[in-house]
Amino acid sequence: MLLFRRAWGGLSIMDVGFVQNSPIFGRVKANLDHVTDLLGATDADLLVLPELFATGYQFASRREVERLAELVPDGPTTKRLLAVAHQRRCVIVAGLAERKGRALYNSAIVVGPKGLIGLYRKTHLFYEETLWFTPGNTGFRTWNTAGATVGVMVCFDWFFPESMRCMALSGADLICHPANLVLPHAPNAMITRCLENRVFAITADRVGAEERAGKERLTYIGTSQIVSPQGEVLARAATEGEEVRVVTIDPKEARRKTVNRYNHLFSDRRVEWYETLTLPTAGPAQPRPNARPGKARAVRRTAG
Amino acid sequence: MLLFRRAWGGLSIMDVGFVQNSPIFGRVKANLDHVTDLLGATDADLLVLPELFATGYQFASRREVERLAELVPDGPTTKRLLAVAHQRRCVIVAGLAERKGRALYNSAIVVGPKGLIGLYRKTHLFYEETLWFTPGNTGFRTWNTAGATVGVMVCFDWFFPESMRCMALSGADLICHPANLVLPHAPNAMITRCLENRVFAITADRVGAEERAGKERLTYIGTSQIVSPQGEVLARAATEGEEVRVVTIDPKEARRKTVNRYNHLFSDRRVEWYETLTLPTAGPAQPRPNARPGKARAVRRTAG
Repeated sequence: MLLFRRAWGGLSIMDVGFVQNSPIFGRVKANLDHVTDLLGATDADLLVLPELFATGYQFASRREVERLAELVPDGPTTKRLLAVAHQRRCVIVAGLAERKGRALYNSAIVVGPKGLIGLYRKTHLFYEETLWFTPGNTGFRTWNTAGATVGVMVCFDWFFPESMRCMALSGADLICHPANLVLPHAPNAMITRCLENRVFAITADRVGAEERAGKERLTYIGTSQIVSPQGEVLARAATEGEEVRVVTIDPKEARRKTVNRYNHLFSDRRVEWYETLTLPTAGPAQPRPNARPGKARAVRRTAG
Repeated sequence: MLLFRRAWGGLSIMDVGFVQNSPIFGRVKANLDHVTDLLGATDADLLVLPELFATGYQFASRREVERLAELVPDGPTTKRLLAVAHQRRCVIVAGLAERKGRALYNSAIVVGPKGLIGLYRKTHLFYEETLWFTPGNTGFRTWNTAGATVGVMVCFDWFFPESMRCMALSGADLICHPANLVLPHAPNAMITRCLENRVFAITADRVGAEERAGKERLTYIGTSQIVSPQGEVLARAATEGEEVRVVTIDPKEARRKTVNRYNHLFSDRRVEWYETLTLPTAGPAQPRPNARPGKARAVRRTAG
């Protein structure tokens, strides 16, 4: 609600937050209901939910992903979030399994009171995701909404500094980062990411564990957090337990890229020395022990 | 000494370290003598010394830099380090003010028992450095020495993820990082840098403070450190006090870029979505309050 009041008042401050949930695998409707309950009386301009927050993460097979993947915006998850965004007059960023033609994407949507704002398809797939999802074909996008320029990346994208750099260079003030973290590094690394780009970031992670279809147990680290462009942790959730947190930020803080009177984070970049960054990367010297059938299939599917 | 014994034995482990010193401004010979004393009986294959370790950092004027800058390899600092490297049979990476024609660079040299191995000129100048130094024109180089591929960056270069990324993509196992840190962020950020690139890094920082020519007091944060490709801090110095530390590493650890059986840090990069990274960066929307006369001069000098 503040979103519009503040925009009307010419102020740029926003209340932004995350929802840290613990979905039950495959029970989409129950998970959507539960997240709606979790929100309770939360009043925010923008909320970030985890990656695959309504399906769960550890798929047993591609067939299972096919069964749970949804159309955007006509699937139940997008429709429910559109209703919540409309009712609460807020922007919601959330991860879901998307079906588009024969392709499956690990996607995130941006929805607002007036409808679907944006769609991002995960660029850097992690682990077994490479077996069922097609690598994203959207690239790193930004959207102007509620007085901020918002970019979205999903979970493992954080590991590649290129992800947030591209969005920051495109003008993002705030990076929304739905995640299902199983490695311990992201919360501290996201401080570096915010510093190096002078942006806000909201990582919405899940908690709980999954151990399905005889696979290894995945324990999610929670630790959802909101970081400022100065690398301050404005809010950090616990490693266990569901939690909703909201903080007030001024997205304009992310537009001052001056480090001091002599240095500017972006105009000091010396792109003439960065050529290596966009050269095709040589693969591993040796073939990897496990090929990536999913990725190979996905590439064929995209090409077809 | 181990450098050669190990290379002969076909082993790849190395003893690598840093020297954290506290130079007296402008007293080059005394500072060189003192660093030599600090080394004492230290036995290492590769040692990193801080940025501008023999001159001090806070120059009062460009004239003062001109007076203290040296030719490479014919100046007193390079000559002394060549002698030390020869005597100790080790590789030394160290920062110095370099004079080349009419240009002055904030440089780092790589010297070994047999002579000068490499030269790097700081790409991203910090604060008043922009008034006296010319932005580096070497780009990010790597050298094969003592069984490792070594890259060099200087201090503020760390803030730009492009610096270490370029060196890692060029095959660097170990990043040598002479620094004079005044901001608090680098030690933790270097953990992210090592993780995202799966490389070792040695940051050699200075301690003490300078307050010269009526300028603001600069307090250096020490905290020199060595980080592994897994983001482990293998050694970290205190914020005060001179210190020499050496740890044993296996540079081959930096060559395994596989995160798990499905992910490889480099071949998973999707350069088709990174185009923004090498586009000329738009400058600040508004002219900065303080132009950078030194940089402008430097550009003219380079062009002339």
